[in-house]
Amino acid sequence: MTVAVCMGSDSDYPTMGAAVEILREFDIPHDVRVLSAHRMPHEMIAFGTEAAASGYKVIIAGAGGAAHLPGMLASVTTLPVIGVPVDITALDGMDSLLSIVQMPRGIPVATVAIGGAANAGLLAARILATGDDALAGRLRDYAEELKAEARAKNDRLPRDQQPFGFKNG
Amino acid sequence: MTVAVCMGSDSDYPTMGAAVEILREFDIPHDVRVLSAHRMPHEMIAFGTEAAASGYKVIIAGAGGAAHLPGMLASVTTLPVIGVPVDITALDGMDSLLSIVQMPRGIPVATVAIGGAANAGLLAARILATGDDALAGRLRDYAEELKAEARAKNDRLPRDQQPFGFKNG
Amino acid sequence: MTVAVCMGSDSDYPTMGAAVEILREFDIPHDVRVLSAHRMPHEMIAFGTEAAASGYKVIIAGAGGAAHLPGMLASVTTLPVIGVPVDITALDGMDSLLSIVQMPRGIPVATVAIGGAANAGLLAARILATGDDALAGRLRDYAEELKAEARAKNDRLPRDQQPFGFKNG
Amino acid sequence: MTVAVCMGSDSDYPTMGAAVEILREFDIPHDVRVLSAHRMPHEMIAFGTEAAASGYKVIIAGAGGAAHLPGMLASVTTLPVIGVPVDITALDGMDSLLSIVQMPRGIPVATVAIGGAANAGLLAARILATGDDALAGRLRDYAEELKAEARAKNDRLPRDQQPFGFKNG
Amino acid sequence: MTVAVCMGSDSDYPTMGAAVEILREFDIPHDVRVLSAHRMPHEMIAFGTEAAASGYKVIIAGAGGAAHLPGMLASVTTLPVIGVPVDITALDGMDSLLSIVQMPRGIPVATVAIGGAANAGLLAARILATGDDALAGRLRDYAEELKAEARAKNDRLPRDQQPFGFKNG
Amino acid sequence: MTVAVCMGSDSDYPTMGAAVEILREFDIPHDVRVLSAHRMPHEMIAFGTEAAASGYKVIIAGAGGAAHLPGMLASVTTLPVIGVPVDITALDGMDSLLSIVQMPRGIPVATVAIGGAANAGLLAARILATGDDALAGRLRDYAEELKAEARAKNDRLPRDQQPFGFKNG
Amino acid sequence: MTVAVCMGSDSDYPTMGAAVEILREFDIPHDVRVLSAHRMPHEMIAFGTEAAASGYKVIIAGAGGAAHLPGMLASVTTLPVIGVPVDITALDGMDSLLSIVQMPRGIPVATVAIGGAANAGLLAARILATGDDALAGRLRDYAEELKAEARAKNDRLPRDQQPFGFKNG
Amino acid sequence: MTVAVCMGSDSDYPTMGAAVEILREFDIPHDVRVLSAHRMPHEMIAFGTEAAASGYKVIIAGAGGAAHLPGMLASVTTLPVIGVPVDITALDGMDSLLSIVQMPRGIPVATVAIGGAANAGLLAARILATGDDALAGRLRDYAEELKAEARAKNDRLPRDQQPFGFKNG
Repeated sequence: MTVAVCMGSDSDYPTMGAAVEILREFDIPHDVRVLSAHRMPHEMIAFGTEAAASGYKVIIAGAGGAAHLPGMLASVTTLPVIGVPVDITALDGMDSLLSIVQMPRGIPVATVAIGGAANAGLLAARILATGDDALAGRLRDYAEELKAEARAKNDRLPRDQQPFGFKNG
Repeated sequence: MTVAVCMGSDSDYPTMGAAVEILREFDIPHDVRVLSAHRMPHEMIAFGTEAAASGYKVIIAGAGGAAHLPGMLASVTTLPVIGVPVDITALDGMDSLLSIVQMPRGIPVATVAIGGAANAGLLAARILATGDDALAGRLRDYAEELKAEARAKNDRLPRDQQPFGFKNG
Repeated sequence: MTVAVCMGSDSDYPTMGAAVEILREFDIPHDVRVLSAHRMPHEMIAFGTEAAASGYKVIIAGAGGAAHLPGMLASVTTLPVIGVPVDITALDGMDSLLSIVQMPRGIPVATVAIGGAANAGLLAARILATGDDALAGRLRDYAEELKAEARAKNDRLPRDQQPFGFKNG
Repeated sequence: MTVAVCMGSDSDYPTMGAAVEILREFDIPHDVRVLSAHRMPHEMIAFGTEAAASGYKVIIAGAGGAAHLPGMLASVTTLPVIGVPVDITALDGMDSLLSIVQMPRGIPVATVAIGGAANAGLLAARILATGDDALAGRLRDYAEELKAEARAKNDRLPRDQQPFGFKNG
Repeated sequence: MTVAVCMGSDSDYPTMGAAVEILREFDIPHDVRVLSAHRMPHEMIAFGTEAAASGYKVIIAGAGGAAHLPGMLASVTTLPVIGVPVDITALDGMDSLLSIVQMPRGIPVATVAIGGAANAGLLAARILATGDDALAGRLRDYAEELKAEARAKNDRLPRDQQPFGFKNG
Repeated sequence: MTVAVCMGSDSDYPTMGAAVEILREFDIPHDVRVLSAHRMPHEMIAFGTEAAASGYKVIIAGAGGAAHLPGMLASVTTLPVIGVPVDITALDGMDSLLSIVQMPRGIPVATVAIGGAANAGLLAARILATGDDALAGRLRDYAEELKAEARAKNDRLPRDQQPFGFKNG
Repeated sequence: MTVAVCMGSDSDYPTMGAAVEILREFDIPHDVRVLSAHRMPHEMIAFGTEAAASGYKVIIAGAGGAAHLPGMLASVTTLPVIGVPVDITALDGMDSLLSIVQMPRGIPVATVAIGGAANAGLLAARILATGDDALAGRLRDYAEELKAEARAKNDRLPRDQQPFGFKNG
Repeated sequence: MTVAVCMGSDSDYPTMGAAVEILREFDIPHDVRVLSAHRMPHEMIAFGTEAAASGYKVIIAGAGGAAHLPGMLASVTTLPVIGVPVDITALDGMDSLLSIVQMPRGIPVATVAIGGAANAGLLAARILATGDDALAGRLRDYAEELKAEARAKNDRLPRDQQPFGFKNG
C-alpha cells in the first residue's frame, strides 16, 4: 500500500470517504482504517512508527474536535502526513483546524481545508507524482477536467430571462 | 511523587512554574519535566502509561499551539489529567485552549484558563483533598487568604481625591 | 451522595444527562438538580457552601450563555468542580466555554468540551478513583471497551467497492 | 450613595477609574469598592441583596476573564446593573464581554464596550436623569461639549502640506 | 408613552416582540415601530432627537448585521438606550453585538445578549423602577417567580430510572 | 457590456443572482459568467487583463472559502472590483470575507457583506452614477422606495393585542 | 472637491492619512474632516445628505469600534461610500470591520481592509477613472510601479550566505 | 533547483527565512524569490505554470492578509504547494490562514502553522524523501536531534529551590 487513510472514528467516514474516492480514481494503492489517537493510542503510535517500514509513502489522517491524530502520527514518522480537519463539534471545525495546523517547529502536518478530504487525496497524488511522471500526467489531465467542468457550469448559468444579450465567459 | 507537572517545552516554564509554586505552597510532592508529545512521543506515551503504577495521583500538563500533550496523556492513563493552555502562538492561546478542551467522548481533560497554571495546581490540590482532610483544611485557609487579600485591595483603592465620603465595601 | 450534578435549567438536561448516565454506569452515588446561579442565587450559594459538609466529593455543573454556575460554586467550596459548557445561544457554546474556563487565579474550574457532559462524568470518576482502586480498575476496563469499540468501528468501514485489497488497521 | 462602582480586583481600577471620573464630573454621589465574585462570594451576594435597601439606585460592575460579578449582582438585586468588560487575559476582553452580555432571560445586565467604563458612568447618569431634570440638562451640555471637541479636532487636522485648498467640515 | 421599542425591520419582530411582552406584563406604556437607521435615516434622527421631549423615558432598539440603530439613537438623545443584537446574518449575531456594544467614549448603549429582547424589556423596567417603588416591587415579585419556576423545573427533572435515591435541590 | 458579474462556481449563483437582479432593475448592461480563479486561472487572468479594453466599467466577483477571484481580478485590472463573500464552507463566510477584504496596499477590492450580492449591484450602480445623472436619479428613487417599504413594514407590525394605544413611528 | 475624506476622530488620522497621500499623489481634489457619527450626528447627516449636491463624487469614511460613520453616510447619499475599518479597540479592528461591511440590503459600503486607507484612496481613484481616461492611465502606471517595486524587493532578498546558486525570480 | 521558496513581499522574509535555513540544513537545492500574486500577477502565473518543467519538485509559498499566492500557484501547477500563513495584519494571521487553507475541492494547498516556515521546509524534505532514502535517513536523524534537545531542555528546568527531590522525565 502506498497511502494510508486514517480517521479517528467511523463517524469521520462521510467526510474522509472523499479522499478514498480520489485515490481510487488515480489508481493509487491505499488502505483505510479507524485509528483513534485517544481510544487506541498505543496502536496509533505503533502504526505510525512502522508506517514507513511497512511501505507507505504518505499518510492521510482526519479527525474532529481536539484532533490529535495527524500531529501524533507526524511525530512518530518522517513520512509526509496530510491532516484533514473534520467538522463534528459545535465550533464548525475551527477547533479541529487549529488542533491540526498549529503544530510546533519540527513536526509539520500538511493541513487542508475543513472537510477537505478530496484535496487530501489530491495532495497525496501531487506528492507521489514528484517521483512518478505518469501520475503527474494524470494530475494534468485532472486539472483539464476541472477546467472543462467550470466552463460547462458557465454554460448552464440561468440567463434566458435577462433583457440584454449575455455572452459566455 | 503525587503530582507530575509536564510541559511540552522549557519555553512553557514561565507559565507552568505557577503550578509548581502552588504545589510547593501546599506541600504536595511533585516533580516537573519537559515531556514533548511531538518531540518525545514514545517517552511521552511510556510515561503516561506507567504514571499510575509509578504512584502519581494527578498529572498537570501544559502546552501551546496544537497542544496534544494533555489529551495524549489522558488517553494512556486513567489518572485525572489537568490541561493548561499556554499562549505561545499568534492566536492568543485560543488554538491551545481548543486543542486541549475539545476532547472526544471517553477521554476527559480537566482544562483551566489560558495561562492558568496556578489554578491547575489548585485543582490538583482540590482533587487530592477529596481523600485528605488536612489538605482540604489548607484549601479552606487558602480561600480565607484570598478573601483577606481582596479586602486589602479594597482598602488600598484610590479614594482621596474624591469629593464625597467613600465607604469601604 | 458522592457527586452532585447541577444545571442552570432543565433545558440543559439533554446535554447534562450524559453525565448522569456515566455516573450510573460506574455505580457512583449521585443526585441531580436544577440550580440556577441567576434565578436561585441564594440557594445556589447555600448549596455550594454546604456541599462538602453534606458529603459530596465532586460537583459537576453545566450551564450555557454567560455561564456562571460552575465558577460560583467553585468560589464557595473547596471541592473539585467540573464545568460543562452547554450550547444554547447563537454563539455555538463559545460564550459558555469562555465564561467557565477563563476563571481568575485562585478559583479553578475543571472544564470539559462544549456539550462534553459524558466526559464530566468520567472526570468525576477519575478524580474519585485517586482514592478508590476498584473504581480505577473499572476505568481501565472502560478504556479497554473504548479501544474494542474503535476496533469494531474499523472493521465496519465501507471497503467492498474498492479495487485493491484493504487490510484492517 | 446613589451609584456603587464595584470591581473584581484592584487591577481593574486603571479601567474602572474612568467611571468614577464621570460620576464625579456629574456630581453623582457614589462609592467604589473591590468586590470579587470569586474571592468574596458571600460578601458580594450580601452587598447586592441589600444594595437597593442601602439606597443605591444603580450598580456599575467591572470584571475581566470569566467575569461573573455583574451578572451575579444583577441576580440578587432589581436595580439596574451596568457591566464593564475588562481586558485582562490573553483573549482581548472577548471572554469578559461574552461572560457579561450573554445573560439568560430574566436577568439583564446593561453591558458597555470592552474597557468602556466612562460610558458606564454616563449610562448611570442617563438612567438617573430619567427622574432628574437637572441631570438631564447636564447630559445635554455634555453632548454639546463632545460636539465642540469633535469640531476642534477637525480644526487641528494636518492640512498645511496639501496642494489644494481644504475646507473644514 | 414611556418606552419606545424600535427595530430596524419587521423581520426583527420575532426577536423584539419579547421586549413588548415584558413591557405589557409590567404595564409599562410603550409603543413599537420600525425605524431603520439605514432606510429612514432622517426620520430616525428626528425621532431620536425629539424622543425626550415627546415624553419617552427609555428607548429599546434592536437591529442585526451592521446594527447602527441603537448607537445612532443614543447619539441624538440623552435618554438611556438599550440595544438588542439580532441574529439575522451568517455570523450568528456577532456582527450585530459588536456593532452595538463597542460604542466610543461619550455615547453609551446598554447592550443585552444576542436575541435578548426580553431582558431589554426587563432592563427598561429596572431603569424606570429607580423612580417608581411600585414597579420595583413588581420586579421583586418577578424575581420570586423566576425562582419558583426554576424550582419547578428541578422537580420535573427525569429521575425515575435511576438506581439510587435522588433528592431535590 | 458595462458590468461583468463573475463567480467562482455555479453554486454561487443563488447568492450572486441578487446582483444580476439589481443590475437588470437599473437597466445596466451586464453579463454573467463562471470564472474560477482556481479551475480556470489562465482564462481568469486573461479576462481581467482585457476587461477594461473590452468596455467593462465595473467588475462584480463573488467567491466562497479561500476566495481569490475578486483580489486576483483587481490585480490585473484598474477597474473597480466589487467582492462578494459567499457563505459555502463550515466557517459561515468568515473565511471568504477575510480572503476578500484583507487585500494588501496597492490592490483594493470593494467588499460588501457576506452574501451581499444585491449591495454589490447597488454599489456598481453608485459607481456608474458618478458619471451618469439619470442613473443617480434612479438611485435616489430607489432610496425613496426603500424608505416607503420601511414605513409600510412599520404599519404592518402586530399591535392589536396590546393594551395601550400604539402610534405609528 | 471630488473626494471627501471623513473620519470619526483625529485619532484615526494616523491611519486615514494614507488615503490623503494617495489622493494627493493622483492629483485628485479632496478635503479631509473629522465628522463623528456619534458626537456630531446632525452635522454628519447634513454633510452626507448634501454631499452630492456639493459636488463630491466619492466619500471615504474611516472609523473604529462600533463604526457607524460609513454606513450612515451611505444611508443619506447615493454617492459611492468607501469604508475603512480602523483598529482602535481591544478587538484588533474586527468590531470595526463587521460594523462597516455587514450592511443590510439596500445600502452598500465599499469596505477595504482593516487599516487599509491607502487602498481606499486607490479605490476612489479607480471609481473616478471609470469616467476619466487620464486617471485610468495613471492607475496603470501605478500598477507598473508596484510591479517594479516588487521586482526590486526580489533583488534585495538576502541570498549571499547560501551554499548554492540562487537565481532571481 | 528542487524547491522554490516564494513570498509575497520582502517583509515576509523574517518569517520565510526559516524555510530557507531548513532547506540549507538538509542540502536541498532551492532558490528564493519575491513573487507577489497581486503586484506581479502575470509573472506569478507564468512562474507557476512553468515550475514543473523548470525542474522544481516542490513550491513553498508564504503570504499574509488576503494571501492568494499559495492557492494561485497551486492552481497553475500540479506540483505540491506548501502554504505558510504570515502574520502581518491586525488579525494575528487568522486572515492569512483561512485564505490559504480553505481552498476549494480540486486545488490543494499543504498548509502549515501561522509563521510555520521552518515546518514548510521540513514538509518539503518529507515530500522529497518519499523518493530519496538518504534524505529520509537525515529526517530520522533530525527527529533524534529534536528528541535530544527536548531531553536537554528537561535537564535545564529550574529545580534547585524546590523542597523535594525532582527526578528527570
